[in-house]
Amino acid sequence: MTMTLYHCINARSFRVLWMLEELGLPYELKVLPFPPRSRDEQYLEVNPLGTIPAFLDGDVWMSESAAICQYLAARHSPHTLDVGVDEADFGAYLNDLHFGEATLTFPQTLILRYGRFEPPERRLAQAAEDYTRWFLSRLRTLEPRLATREFLCAGRFTAADVSVSYALMLATDIGLQDRFKPATLAYWQRLRARPGFLRALEAQARAALEQGVSTASVACWDGR
Amino acid sequence: MTMTLYHCINARSFRVLWMLEELGLPYELKVLPFPPRSRDEQYLEVNPLGTIPAFLDGDVWMSESAAICQYLAARHSPHTLDVGVDEADFGAYLNDLHFGEATLTFPQTLILRYGRFEPPERRLAQAAEDYTRWFLSRLRTLEPRLATREFLCAGRFTAADVSVSYALMLATDIGLQDRFKPATLAYWQRLRARPGFLRALEAQARAALEQGVSTASVACWDGR
Repeated sequence: MTMTLYHCINARSFRVLWMLEELGLPYELKVLPFPPRSRDEQYLEVNPLGTIPAFLDGDVWMSESAAICQYLAARHSPHTLDVGVDEADFGAYLNDLHFGEATLTFPQTLILRYGRFEPPERRLAQAAEDYTRWFLSRLRTLEPRLATREFLCAGRFTAADVSVSYALMLATDIGLQDRFKPATLAYWQRLRARPGFLRALEAQARAALEQGVSTASVACWDGR
Repeated sequence: MTMTLYHCINARSFRVLWMLEELGLPYELKVLPFPPRSRDEQYLEVNPLGTIPAFLDGDVWMSESAAICQYLAARHSPHTLDVGVDEADFGAYLNDLHFGEATLTFPQTLILRYGRFEPPERRLAQAAEDYTRWFLSRLRTLEPRLATREFLCAGRFTAADVSVSYALMLATDIGLQDRFKPATLAYWQRLRARPGFLRALEAQARAALEQGVSTASVACWDGR
């Protein structure tokens, strides 16, 4: 049975798409217009949360993008894109998987919501600015580690790099790339040049065109 | 070497404390006044993020509470509090670990920040209300699963239950318990009665008293 990924352009689900391309696994990609909750009511039957991603692998249903990255790595790439419980960096790996989403991505959803997505009378410039500073202060803590290593943990590319660097992708779409510290920027530039990353970009563009969906990033949506 | 947990009363680090008590592992508990970032500058040497928890286990350093729960379960309780890659519910387990934090806890930090912690002139009633509704709508998606099972996944108590039910603990401190659906409320009442949960409550109260720190929940802090 083929795995299925429900996706919006450059949304969190990009993490999963990137993992699938890195691993060379077969999958079906369904690209939805953003925001899927209001644009496609049938999607609530797939994911009652109304959020992206939704991921199906036989009887397995998942909605948390960083968790899906770990799932794919553990099932299909043990001790390569996955870090095993017996490895010294197992704790760092799990920490970075969560850090990429809970600490580095969620604050950006506030920047988007209160800076762009809400109708003008409900925008909150203070909240957008608060969480821009919040995001950048957390991001800065990566700089010392990235100054001395190519990847976040275990001395190799892992699912943790996908989790964290997706947050850099979203921040770039928002326009915050100029505020990355040098080692963080260099890390992001290395990762975005990976063949697997480029194949994922190509796959989402091709699927969007075939399925008649806009190829604009979710971060460009202006609430209308 | 003993594991060390930096903790604030009823903060996310409670997940880790609860896991340590469920597993019966030795640990050192350091209770900090809230918010640690501004109350104890030396803490930034332990955790440059300034956030709670920080967790040390030999050379392992971690800051993401749900990740630490998975780490402890995998290292100390495989196939019991941990769900193995070979089990049918491995994907659900990972998803729930992340869902508990990224989807169910982060929105509550906005309710606290903009409803209580910020000085009055910076409070944003709209944001606090937006994320109250956001949290409750996500929480509702658990109700059908919890109506038919005792635990979230794998037919047993796991670290995923710790991750998700901590969000119910925080919501209770905030005053949202009356808005839980019946099966979710019953689940929370079952979990909060576990001996391991009660031992964790006792451990934080005892440590706070010994260390001269207030025993009030972080959710009760009013920004002063």
